[in-house]
Amino acid sequence: MAHATAGTLLSILRDGQARTRAELIELTGLARSTLSQRLDALLLHRWILPAEDVVHSKGRPPIAFAFNPRAKIVLAADLGVSRARLAITDLHGTILTQRTADLAVDSGPEHCLSWLLETFTELLAECGHGLADVCGVGLGLPGPVEHETGRPVNPPLMPGWNGFPVPDWLGSRIGAPVLVDNDVNIMALGEHWSASPATRHLVFVKIGTGIGCGIISKGRLHRGARGAAGDIGHIRVPAADHVQCHCGNPGCLEAVAGGRALAARLREGGVEAAGGRDVVRLVRAGNTWATRLVRQSGRDIGLVLASMVNFFNPSQIVIGGDLAGAGDHLIAGVREVIYGRSLPLATQRLDIRASALADRAGVTGAAVMVIEHVLAPDAVDQTVTF
Amino acid sequence: MAHATAGTLLSILRDGQARTRAELIELTGLARSTLSQRLDALLLHRWILPAEDVVHSKGRPPIAFAFNPRAKIVLAADLGVSRARLAITDLHGTILTQRTADLAVDSGPEHCLSWLLETFTELLAECGHGLADVCGVGLGLPGPVEHETGRPVNPPLMPGWNGFPVPDWLGSRIGAPVLVDNDVNIMALGEHWSASPATRHLVFVKIGTGIGCGIISKGRLHRGARGAAGDIGHIRVPAADHVQCHCGNPGCLEAVAGGRALAARLREGGVEAAGGRDVVRLVRAGNTWATRLVRQSGRDIGLVLASMVNFFNPSQIVIGGDLAGAGDHLIAGVREVIYGRSLPLATQRLDIRASALADRAGVTGAAVMVIEHVLAPDAVDQTVTF
Repeated sequence: MAHATAGTLLSILRDGQARTRAELIELTGLARSTLSQRLDALLLHRWILPAEDVVHSKGRPPIAFAFNPRAKIVLAADLGVSRARLAITDLHGTILTQRTADLAVDSGPEHCLSWLLETFTELLAECGHGLADVCGVGLGLPGPVEHETGRPVNPPLMPGWNGFPVPDWLGSRIGAPVLVDNDVNIMALGEHWSASPATRHLVFVKIGTGIGCGIISKGRLHRGARGAAGDIGHIRVPAADHVQCHCGNPGCLEAVAGGRALAARLREGGVEAAGGRDVVRLVRAGNTWATRLVRQSGRDIGLVLASMVNFFNPSQIVIGGDLAGAGDHLIAGVREVIYGRSLPLATQRLDIRASALADRAGVTGAAVMVIEHVLAPDAVDQTVTF
Repeated sequence: MAHATAGTLLSILRDGQARTRAELIELTGLARSTLSQRLDALLLHRWILPAEDVVHSKGRPPIAFAFNPRAKIVLAADLGVSRARLAITDLHGTILTQRTADLAVDSGPEHCLSWLLETFTELLAECGHGLADVCGVGLGLPGPVEHETGRPVNPPLMPGWNGFPVPDWLGSRIGAPVLVDNDVNIMALGEHWSASPATRHLVFVKIGTGIGCGIISKGRLHRGARGAAGDIGHIRVPAADHVQCHCGNPGCLEAVAGGRALAARLREGGVEAAGGRDVVRLVRAGNTWATRLVRQSGRDIGLVLASMVNFFNPSQIVIGGDLAGAGDHLIAGVREVIYGRSLPLATQRLDIRASALADRAGVTGAAVMVIEHVLAPDAVDQTVTF
């Protein structure tokens, strides 16, 4: 383990508590002169501020220091298949301003990212900031992403995006690092950070047109070897081989239980419905058939999750995505099958609930991804050294 | 982050490389006087030794220090349903002496643990050590274990063991901490430590009488919320509802594809076979039917693992346990279904292989569990402070 750098100091101060030099020496073992150098560097870059509640004598340096969450701002975006949500946050992940708009992701990367750039510029102006204040951009996309490079990998619902260098394109225009991930991973991050920070093992299940999950193991996102972890939408559901999935295989979970699949079944019966949001509208209006379909969708998803519960033994399963708007009917179906099928030990203290953040989970997680990256001790050390 | 304690120093030196005071100051930022205190404490407890390859002038203190893997020894045991393997290792996990014996785990905890105690005493004498040299005991059991307390939780194949305070019973007699885990978890630990230390996401699948897996996420064991992670043996296999499992549910993977299930099918056809090891013997002797059964077992297991691959996206799946002795026939079946069913991105660089440690994986992992516990910086600090 290296000795305490400026970045380590900042990671100590990130809890928001102000600390004196003496306390920081106690915590880090640094010599007083070394500590002063580090604090000066952090003050110079405004990562920390003299704490306001400390009265200091005239002419003497301030004696307590606190993290400055407004040192930088974060641009966060969550692109779905047909809608986009953008936000600007501070370094605590607090949303300063936000916007939601229709945006078809299949209009291609250059169109979508140009729109993103324009809209971020408007939002920056709204809250009185410029590009120089931006420490990073976090972006969620509705398909598989190679996290290290930020490039989509054969995303089925995003024609034209395969291998597109999203971080280069956006980063060169904004002048800050760009981190990209699967939309469900950032939802899991956002939900964990904001609503369940003490939960060690969490599975966030997004149920929309597609079905996927984001996995938190020991408090950290598990992306898997190729960033493909959580892609449960193409697990085959028993006795559903008559259903054809857009991926080319029969019986995939999302072709059976996703929002678009339910809407198609309603249409076959003469009920007007284009996607998951229409199904939710029908459920809320008391349509019995839509309610039955949603309940069965919960059961089908529960069947796949029951195996994942045996395998992964999470302490919490969080249900989000458009179809989660149907409320208890969906979750009741999920619970029914998981508690019936999974091992007693694995369900003993399992909590299955609706997302507390709902449609803010994605942008919150996109911001958290950037904050964790920018405030990592090594990254802070680089900003204060060069 | 705290400053470098004696334990942190030891964690730096654990790579086996000798380092001078100057190098350690560079790495830790400690003041020279503090470093000397820490080194003296570690030398006193023989956690480190003056490095032998350094020539030092008469009367001056040694100037380089190295980790001492023989400072303490570890007692490690892997209890299966009917066989036990015991080993004594050093702090690098190197096996100093070992023994294998028949032991029926259903003879109850007191009988099994008494036998364990006796046999460890004999092994200690063999390699010239006493109980005072033992820093900890690692034990793997063939059933679910609550890792924090070391107590088995309703283990189906271990009558009499439910809730038995294994660590208290053994610890009070041996005078060292006792860590207990599921046998598959310690196999995953052993395989990862010994054969695949660079693999970040690994799933070790044990195929014996039961079927279960141990999961490594980001290089660390994922035990799940209740220590139940990896219990895939009771996931329901499609179209196998006519098979009754000992757990009370129909169609469980281990009732379809486990060693005992295959042996039962051979017996129904008039072939002599009691369990997985007999099946392996028949395969090796060229019995076509046994070979076909093993291949199909691989496919059934592959079907369950294909979903886990989509969910978890491991970089390596390691196949171990008795039935793995049947060699390529089993693994070919697993590969066939996983590559056919899982998502292309998730299998792009997936490596599916037989365990390199084979039946040593368990004792190695039991020792590793203890070593990681005993050499954790906080734990070392306590030994040198009190």
